[in-house]
Amino acid sequence: MVKVGIVGISGFSGKVLLDILLRHSQVRVTYVAANSTTGRVDEIWPEFLGRTSLVCHKYDQAQAVEACDLVFLALPHMESMKVAGALVKAGKKVVDLSADYRLKRSSLYKKWYHGEHKDPKNLRKAVYGLPEMFRAKVKKAQLLSNPGCYPTAALLGLAPLMALHSGDVASVVIDAKSGASGAGKKVTEALMYCGVNENFKAYKVLQHQHTPEIEQYLSIMAERPVVIAFVPHLLPIDSGILETIYVGMKENVSLSALHQLYRKFYKTEPFVRVLGPGVQPEIRHVVRTNFCDIGLAVSEDKRMLVVTSAIDNLVKGASGQAVQNMNIMCGFSETEGLL
Amino acid sequence: MVKVGIVGISGFSGKVLLDILLRHSQVRVTYVAANSTTGRVDEIWPEFLGRTSLVCHKYDQAQAVEACDLVFLALPHMESMKVAGALVKAGKKVVDLSADYRLKRSSLYKKWYHGEHKDPKNLRKAVYGLPEMFRAKVKKAQLLSNPGCYPTAALLGLAPLMALHSGDVASVVIDAKSGASGAGKKVTEALMYCGVNENFKAYKVLQHQHTPEIEQYLSIMAERPVVIAFVPHLLPIDSGILETIYVGMKENVSLSALHQLYRKFYKTEPFVRVLGPGVQPEIRHVVRTNFCDIGLAVSEDKRMLVVTSAIDNLVKGASGQAVQNMNIMCGFSETEGLL
Amino acid sequence: MVKVGIVGISGFSGKVLLDILLRHSQVRVTYVAANSTTGRVDEIWPEFLGRTSLVCHKYDQAQAVEACDLVFLALPHMESMKVAGALVKAGKKVVDLSADYRLKRSSLYKKWYHGEHKDPKNLRKAVYGLPEMFRAKVKKAQLLSNPGCYPTAALLGLAPLMALHSGDVASVVIDAKSGASGAGKKVTEALMYCGVNENFKAYKVLQHQHTPEIEQYLSIMAERPVVIAFVPHLLPIDSGILETIYVGMKENVSLSALHQLYRKFYKTEPFVRVLGPGVQPEIRHVVRTNFCDIGLAVSEDKRMLVVTSAIDNLVKGASGQAVQNMNIMCGFSETEGLL
Amino acid sequence: MVKVGIVGISGFSGKVLLDILLRHSQVRVTYVAANSTTGRVDEIWPEFLGRTSLVCHKYDQAQAVEACDLVFLALPHMESMKVAGALVKAGKKVVDLSADYRLKRSSLYKKWYHGEHKDPKNLRKAVYGLPEMFRAKVKKAQLLSNPGCYPTAALLGLAPLMALHSGDVASVVIDAKSGASGAGKKVTEALMYCGVNENFKAYKVLQHQHTPEIEQYLSIMAERPVVIAFVPHLLPIDSGILETIYVGMKENVSLSALHQLYRKFYKTEPFVRVLGPGVQPEIRHVVRTNFCDIGLAVSEDKRMLVVTSAIDNLVKGASGQAVQNMNIMCGFSETEGLL
Repeated sequence: MVKVGIVGISGFSGKVLLDILLRHSQVRVTYVAANSTTGRVDEIWPEFLGRTSLVCHKYDQAQAVEACDLVFLALPHMESMKVAGALVKAGKKVVDLSADYRLKRSSLYKKWYHGEHKDPKNLRKAVYGLPEMFRAKVKKAQLLSNPGCYPTAALLGLAPLMALHSGDVASVVIDAKSGASGAGKKVTEALMYCGVNENFKAYKVLQHQHTPEIEQYLSIMAERPVVIAFVPHLLPIDSGILETIYVGMKENVSLSALHQLYRKFYKTEPFVRVLGPGVQPEIRHVVRTNFCDIGLAVSEDKRMLVVTSAIDNLVKGASGQAVQNMNIMCGFSETEGLL
Repeated sequence: MVKVGIVGISGFSGKVLLDILLRHSQVRVTYVAANSTTGRVDEIWPEFLGRTSLVCHKYDQAQAVEACDLVFLALPHMESMKVAGALVKAGKKVVDLSADYRLKRSSLYKKWYHGEHKDPKNLRKAVYGLPEMFRAKVKKAQLLSNPGCYPTAALLGLAPLMALHSGDVASVVIDAKSGASGAGKKVTEALMYCGVNENFKAYKVLQHQHTPEIEQYLSIMAERPVVIAFVPHLLPIDSGILETIYVGMKENVSLSALHQLYRKFYKTEPFVRVLGPGVQPEIRHVVRTNFCDIGLAVSEDKRMLVVTSAIDNLVKGASGQAVQNMNIMCGFSETEGLL
Repeated sequence: MVKVGIVGISGFSGKVLLDILLRHSQVRVTYVAANSTTGRVDEIWPEFLGRTSLVCHKYDQAQAVEACDLVFLALPHMESMKVAGALVKAGKKVVDLSADYRLKRSSLYKKWYHGEHKDPKNLRKAVYGLPEMFRAKVKKAQLLSNPGCYPTAALLGLAPLMALHSGDVASVVIDAKSGASGAGKKVTEALMYCGVNENFKAYKVLQHQHTPEIEQYLSIMAERPVVIAFVPHLLPIDSGILETIYVGMKENVSLSALHQLYRKFYKTEPFVRVLGPGVQPEIRHVVRTNFCDIGLAVSEDKRMLVVTSAIDNLVKGASGQAVQNMNIMCGFSETEGLL
Repeated sequence: MVKVGIVGISGFSGKVLLDILLRHSQVRVTYVAANSTTGRVDEIWPEFLGRTSLVCHKYDQAQAVEACDLVFLALPHMESMKVAGALVKAGKKVVDLSADYRLKRSSLYKKWYHGEHKDPKNLRKAVYGLPEMFRAKVKKAQLLSNPGCYPTAALLGLAPLMALHSGDVASVVIDAKSGASGAGKKVTEALMYCGVNENFKAYKVLQHQHTPEIEQYLSIMAERPVVIAFVPHLLPIDSGILETIYVGMKENVSLSALHQLYRKFYKTEPFVRVLGPGVQPEIRHVVRTNFCDIGLAVSEDKRMLVVTSAIDNLVKGASGQAVQNMNIMCGFSETEGLL
């Protein structure tokens, strides 16, 4: 059994991680910690009563090193970078769920996360854990940077096109909608029940910090700079993301060719489901699973492609994908604990 | 007091119409009818208990003519056209909430509504009741075609730009989200609680019947053919529409100039609220009102404009706008019953 | 026009009050204030944009006295009592929506509201504003204590029985369910979207502060001490209360006799709707109205009566009833602004 | 591997059964059927895409007998009794999720389920599968009658009291609230999104068919006839039941003694969690689990006990408990597939 730790158990990602890991047949959770919360995990999250007797400690590096072979960091942005380096140095495998090792250029952190990057050395070494694109690198990673929720849905929705036909792409608009758990457990007026229920709104219009992450990996796939328009919205549901992606094409595109392209691209992927022509993904079908469902449509004039991509923001968009990455890094079956 | 009738009381639009008209100081509801439902209105809609003793009859033209000066038709598409002509001939004012008189070319009905238009003569005479664009014509209308819900939000969101700067517009993508009441009272599996709650999905992707209505009036404003990409989605809320409109620009655009343009365009409009730069509309702020709230944003490279437009689909998107049109047609204060 | 003020505009009751009063034909809102929030009302509550240009001030007694004939206090419990006395002394009519003048004995405030009552003199003078029971007193009231939301539904559900047949009543259990707006605008973890949505729970079991208020007025109606078991629950909806009241009877009771009793008792009441035998109230039918809907059922052995009572906690349970009381106090039509 | 079949895959219970059984390490699902729906399971329920290639057939007894060692019947009431007998005769183990074998007296089916019982012989043999009460009998059962959702929460909430102190119990009122999935997949106007969302109501007041089931097993535990008042309500959530149970006591009761009693009674139960004094169960903590959470409170005068009991109606209230029973019947670990 591999000994794993979770740092950041008091957040939603930490909770979902623990839920998955308790069912995982090849790991044992030996350490849980948080920045400010301490105490029995089944008091922090009463849903775990009867499932675990784990106790959450204030994070202590020596304890983490002592107790774990692999550590999940489910910390807020700009916090993981204070912790990851030492664990890497101690030879531990690290799966970081924050944004801290996702952007290649440290200067981008100043612009999008409003702070100086504290660990540029490891930033260069970190592997971006989208297995469908970078599985070979994930296998050998020591420091794994787990993708953001919006980027996961966007990149999986666009990968076949960008990897194989990027020259035909003229423009990309991503209209993204996420459930409220995407905002984390921050206690703010905007996230009170009576502010989210029976409501819907856009936020951080054209200014969301996931924009550069999406652009960076689309550009890598396309092997040329790709610019997107990205607008996220807040859905009155707990969990789930649906992104509606409008791709303006330079050449005519046919739905059946496109469908074939996507099916082939994802043929062996256990967690990507390309739906038949005319079928649209629904958040309800992916929530609490590690699947990404993809739908395709083409305009009458064949110059506009609409890709719809649905995931659970806390599973394929965070903790499920983190476990998928761990499975690859540790040589387990990639679907262990996730089906 | 003007005597008004509601045909189609058993649908959501009919219900909201009655709710507004019962508070209106210058009309009296003298006739309510439906196609299949009959009986006391407060049994069809228990919320009206103690507010009205009206009884719903099976629609009868002679009764309608006898009882009403003005008739609201809140019937399904392809049904109003069987009824409106006779009322017009009898000299009655008619406000039709269906799509039956919205498209200029009767041939479009075959494509988008799957039927032959039965009343092409009146189709030519009907006035499209978006007061912010066509108030002068509405004043003199006898047969008023009330705009669709999605078109109302889209056209108000784009009118200033299309009327005054359409030459700069390169592309228009409309990502629309609507609450479940937009689908009407049809009893279908897809609209059951457990199919809508905690869910979100796109539907009729690039194939929704409101597309030609939006294109027709954008083209009139722009004085050139305008083509859009339009994708609607189903929100897990009762009522409300938010549309996120991505406008690709041929020239650089500045947010402050745009904001000024919109503010000036709508300066005297009682029901359009242009929000300040950086402020986004929320469905919660317009629901159960006749307001349309508009937000504006511009991309860093100044070539992409994002307009967000929010209405209540049953009020400004249907019954409220119908009453606004009646107010104009009858010479009442335009806001009577609506503030 | 009577000049009215609202103190506590930043809370939900204050907002709903303003919404009703802006449509009221015989008053003008001349003053709005709050304890901590200041600024344009349409910035505090964007839904009012285009409906009012009122500005919210930090509460100032001299200003309130100067500007208003009647003042609504929509303040937190234990705050109204600091303000009401001076307004009464200045000859103003006061409608207090807090609990501060509801309990007859000041000692009860220590137990249930954890503080010393600051204004026992006016506590004795205050009139409890449940018009269906105390209309004659309300007419002459200067200081009106507006009932709590749970008590309104409970007292209206039990009044006919308690006023006319209290001798037959053996036991009263009140199982109450309320939407999230009942908790006010407190920003707490328990009221975050992800804690209320898709959830349901009891709270303050047998310990809610509305218990003594309900018992006090049931006892007045019954002319003997009445003790209840009261358990409130939190519903995942914005607004609305449904109470299911189980009355154990000493004598057999018949549904038809009971139904007649209730119908007769409320015959002339504009806001109480006694539903037919077999019909159950639904929150949806009363929400955003000042109605209280009542359903009745009797057990097979005729010894248990189940009364179901539904209101909107913010309307009949707070601001709507406050306006109803103002209408009576000022000699307006009792339903003005409320139908 | 034990070969199991699911008859009634098109309903919610069937779906949840399959979800659990696909993760179960000791069974293989070899047969799925339904009454009217046929085709690939991942088309009936798109959430199963990529998880199973099972095909649903119209139910055929010979096929079921051929393919399965144990059959789950997730059929509507009055349908299971047409099918179960033959499977039992063929020597198969049967777990029936309908009500068809729950009531001891076949005459009760006429009153509560409006039909003649077709299989009274097996009715006598069937074992009621509430493991916490009848584990020894479950072990040897061939025909297992899985408890109803409301009865499960009620019986677990009352078992310690009824088994050990029934003499002190004077009255039992059960106020029950269930999510919409409890009504099954019927396509009716009452279950449409806009009829359930933002709504709440009681239904079948004092007339719900689970009443005799609860009374029958309370009476068995108490060893005397127990009569209850039972009122169910419809919650605007997908899944989950909370019951608030008011027990009038003939003798004083202390919260700490009661708490001890419950803790001791359920000490070795893997799926019943007795919460600490002052802690209330929440639907959110049990949803999608097989747990039943129980909270306790006592009135000031010590004569009223309030038990709150929460389960997921589709898991512990249906399919989870069915698997728990199968585990016991087959000698598997009781928690296999369920933690």
